[in-house]
Amino acid sequence: MRIDIITCVPKLLEGPFSHSILKRAQDNGLVEIAVHDLRKYAINKHGQIDDYAYGYGAGMVLMIEPIERCINDLKAERTYDEIIYMTPDGEVFNQQTANQLSLGGNLIILCGHYKGVDERIREKFITKEISVGDYVLTGGELGAAIVADAVVRLIPGVMNDETSALSDSFQDDLLAPPVYTRPAEYDGMKVPDVLLSGHEAKIAEWRFEKSIERTKERRPDLYEKFKKKY
Amino acid sequence: MRIDIITCVPKLLEGPFSHSILKRAQDNGLVEIAVHDLRKYAINKHGQIDDYAYGYGAGMVLMIEPIERCINDLKAERTYDEIIYMTPDGEVFNQQTANQLSLGGNLIILCGHYKGVDERIREKFITKEISVGDYVLTGGELGAAIVADAVVRLIPGVMNDETSALSDSFQDDLLAPPVYTRPAEYDGMKVPDVLLSGHEAKIAEWRFEKSIERTKERRPDLYEKFKKKY
Repeated sequence: MRIDIITCVPKLLEGPFSHSILKRAQDNGLVEIAVHDLRKYAINKHGQIDDYAYGYGAGMVLMIEPIERCINDLKAERTYDEIIYMTPDGEVFNQQTANQLSLGGNLIILCGHYKGVDERIREKFITKEISVGDYVLTGGELGAAIVADAVVRLIPGVMNDETSALSDSFQDDLLAPPVYTRPAEYDGMKVPDVLLSGHEAKIAEWRFEKSIERTKERRPDLYEKFKKKY
Repeated sequence: MRIDIITCVPKLLEGPFSHSILKRAQDNGLVEIAVHDLRKYAINKHGQIDDYAYGYGAGMVLMIEPIERCINDLKAERTYDEIIYMTPDGEVFNQQTANQLSLGGNLIILCGHYKGVDERIREKFITKEISVGDYVLTGGELGAAIVADAVVRLIPGVMNDETSALSDSFQDDLLAPPVYTRPAEYDGMKVPDVLLSGHEAKIAEWRFEKSIERTKERRPDLYEKFKKKY
């Protein structure tokens, strides 16, 4: 799997892919992540890639031509399953979409910045529009990092036992139960006895109950989905 | 306003705060953002900050003591409005929460990693738990970056006209209308005539209609909220 990210601020993405699990996944050849600087595809020698929006008072919009050229360069190298645009009005990203993308092949992720990209780019090139949540960010870069992180960690071999995805929230529409580690007592606060009991079946039952309880209390919307399924 | 982020992988946050709008906001003295390495508060000279979860087969959990010491150090320096924990089972982050936090004072944001933090930390120190969406990430770092970005850009003076928040999605429960920039015609695809007309009232009407249309089509849930309010 390969993920190509197109951005006009590549430095924003310096940290997220160069450390921790995403770095290891790349070092082990399980995924390739490449960040492309849109400014290399500027329309003139001043490095222009954006211009004022038609009919608006304020706000810069990324132009079609640099993006088209960058996408065409990438498509000349390999085929892509999806060309994704990160945008607040896209399909809301969730664990199911992450699961689905982790099974697929190559992805291009286009990040908007400021007011976004010319609408005609979306009509002509984009196959999937994703929003990471109902809030507005400076640009699509953090959203792209989130999609890459959520997807890459699901690729077989990326996580070891220490970081296992099996007990994650959302995999079964339930929130994860609470976790505890040493010491067993800290400042008068104790770890629940059952977790120290070594009794596997009881522990599993406790975890399931806590998952249900927490989901009912915090996310009744998810709990309704869970109930309908089971 | 000051945002202190506590993490065990500070390098993941190198990019997001050192460039673009968040960098400018810090340079202009509008916000201070500090990233704290949890490992400096390790319980022993091996740098230990996590341990196996009680009762689970796999997955590391961040220990209480290093986090408590880091939080206490910060609280000795200044008061905080909220101590936030980034977690998939938190309150789902949205533009309203971003607006609210942008009016407040100092924030601590604690990032979990792998399986999260000992539940007792959450009971004792955390005043607000935030999830950036229904998906699981390697750690809370990208979530913390998202909260910081969404909040800081709303602080008066951070954005100039070019990047104005006034026409953002979600500010009024509607998605933003499409945007276009030069050229007016590209590869047979034209910018809508009205945007080239210079007729301000008609343009405003067109934008509002497109906002409604797009919200109805893509996010009927938001449209219902909008209808109830107006």
